[in-house]
Amino acid sequence: MSELRKDLITREWVIMAPERARRPSDFHHQREAQAVVTKNHSVCPFCSDNESMTPQEILAYRGKGAKPNSSGWWVRVIPNRFPALMVEGKLNRTEHLIYDKMNGVGAHEVIIETPEHGKPLSRLNERQLKEILWAYRERYTDLCKDSRLKYILIFKNHGKVAGASIEHSHSQLIATPMIPQQAWIKIKGIEQYYDYRDNCAYCDIVRAESGKNERTIIENDYFIAIGPYAARHPFETWILPKRHSASFVDMSETEIDELSTTLKMILLKLELCLNDPPYNYTIINSPINSGVISQFHWHIEIIPRLTIAAGFELGTGIYINPVPPEESARYLREIKTLV
Amino acid sequence: MSELRKDLITREWVIMAPERARRPSDFHHQREAQAVVTKNHSVCPFCSDNESMTPQEILAYRGKGAKPNSSGWWVRVIPNRFPALMVEGKLNRTEHLIYDKMNGVGAHEVIIETPEHGKPLSRLNERQLKEILWAYRERYTDLCKDSRLKYILIFKNHGKVAGASIEHSHSQLIATPMIPQQAWIKIKGIEQYYDYRDNCAYCDIVRAESGKNERTIIENDYFIAIGPYAARHPFETWILPKRHSASFVDMSETEIDELSTTLKMILLKLELCLNDPPYNYTIINSPINSGVISQFHWHIEIIPRLTIAAGFELGTGIYINPVPPEESARYLREIKTLV
Repeated sequence: MSELRKDLITREWVIMAPERARRPSDFHHQREAQAVVTKNHSVCPFCSDNESMTPQEILAYRGKGAKPNSSGWWVRVIPNRFPALMVEGKLNRTEHLIYDKMNGVGAHEVIIETPEHGKPLSRLNERQLKEILWAYRERYTDLCKDSRLKYILIFKNHGKVAGASIEHSHSQLIATPMIPQQAWIKIKGIEQYYDYRDNCAYCDIVRAESGKNERTIIENDYFIAIGPYAARHPFETWILPKRHSASFVDMSETEIDELSTTLKMILLKLELCLNDPPYNYTIINSPINSGVISQFHWHIEIIPRLTIAAGFELGTGIYINPVPPEESARYLREIKTLV
Repeated sequence: MSELRKDLITREWVIMAPERARRPSDFHHQREAQAVVTKNHSVCPFCSDNESMTPQEILAYRGKGAKPNSSGWWVRVIPNRFPALMVEGKLNRTEHLIYDKMNGVGAHEVIIETPEHGKPLSRLNERQLKEILWAYRERYTDLCKDSRLKYILIFKNHGKVAGASIEHSHSQLIATPMIPQQAWIKIKGIEQYYDYRDNCAYCDIVRAESGKNERTIIENDYFIAIGPYAARHPFETWILPKRHSASFVDMSETEIDELSTTLKMILLKLELCLNDPPYNYTIINSPINSGVISQFHWHIEIIPRLTIAAGFELGTGIYINPVPPEESARYLREIKTLV
């Protein structure tokens, strides 16, 4: 089982996952090793008919009469074979010398987005995207019932440079037994903004950007996709719900429909504009089981991985971005998609 | 001139550097483009005899009688040709809609560590390392006099994956007109620890690790090099001065001697253990011109770039580390160096 360790000064937690351990020599040809991507259908554990190659499924959407852990599904959720955190076991917090640690209780799941190998998320139809969003929601809602868990992140790694080790299109979910520092920073920022301006910062961003062709890429009745004013990365894109809501599980069916359209359009625009770039997206929600944090405003952050965080970024947390969001938004607006 | 923009929620500043701007097509073959490293001596701007290819030097250590901006130097400091921040101009803070920005005032310098092309820092002799540390100190001390500047980071990018675009061994210095968030987090962490335990957290780490073969790699009278308890990255290594001090400029000559030995040994051990890995190091000091922050404890963080920060790390700030520091310290302790 992995272990969570707390930095004495920054209060950041780190997951020590020796199950994933490697010896120094394994890092010698790191990039070559990462190039091992399952291209062959017959050995891809995420393909239809290869269900026996994965741990037992947690959830699957499949046709009537089809058996669990067999083909016939269109979205399938399984435990990660090399979990960073595990549901089993009791949460114990202990000390080691002056340091704090706890055992690696949590959850780590994989959402297989399609039975078809080689089809990226951007090329799935909207109906399929909607099914994926429903699966996210169903797993999220289920894990919220576990009071040991305080935060759930749903995220996607597309492309090797963005950390994907398996090519077949999938997203992941990790639930942690504490509120991550990034979430705390956002919660405090929202609170401070509230105290000062009596309004939600994200609602104010929606208001400031709406109806303008400055940093806005797409806008409809329910969502707005923008290059954020202080974008850390070139072509960083946020999808914000216009309606204030702390968690994506509160979306109505119409909102889920609209989100699947918006997400598909943005992913397609990024793919066409940047020639299928590696990217990550994260669905940022309020913490769970920590008292209602209704001030939070959930949203999606999409980060194409085009530049490298070097010493300056690691040491200060300040990013250097060569493409202002006004420019990236203009490029992305001009890309025509058939959606 | 670049622009500093503040994230409304996280309060993080971002440097928008359109001087470095690229169009979407420039990102299409990003990694190939980054592979363009100056291997040819005659076109490397950092080589001896190519001084005219760089902006006018700010500082150089050279033999008697040698002219500025000509050969004969052993350490040379120049302005970065594509500066993220510039010394020229007045610092103006303004608003754009609901957002804050300021113009990109600061400094961005390059410390060329040797006139010899192709010789990495780890292979320079200790006397040369000492000269580099003196150059760091001289530039740092000089920039402290500019009251507009609040923080100075000295850092090194080694290898393409760590963000180095020029092969010839060099470090960089960036001075910012505000205190970066990472520095604030550390200052607050140190204060909270002080309030709770009446001692410096880093001094307590030195005490906890000293004399043990648990996470300690090297130890002498003045410095200790450890794998930090909550290491975010495999083989992450910190060099901590044993004497409490807020800034590396307070080092005595003996301490600079000892640091050059310690730093060289660690870099050589990492090189031998991990087959010349890409790495970053940062010298973390107290902020400047912001009131004396004597509680700070300066140190060096060395981060080999062996894994990729993916969606989970970007979304939460929590790192997954497959190599616990006890293991990396053991591997590094066992590597024999002739230093």
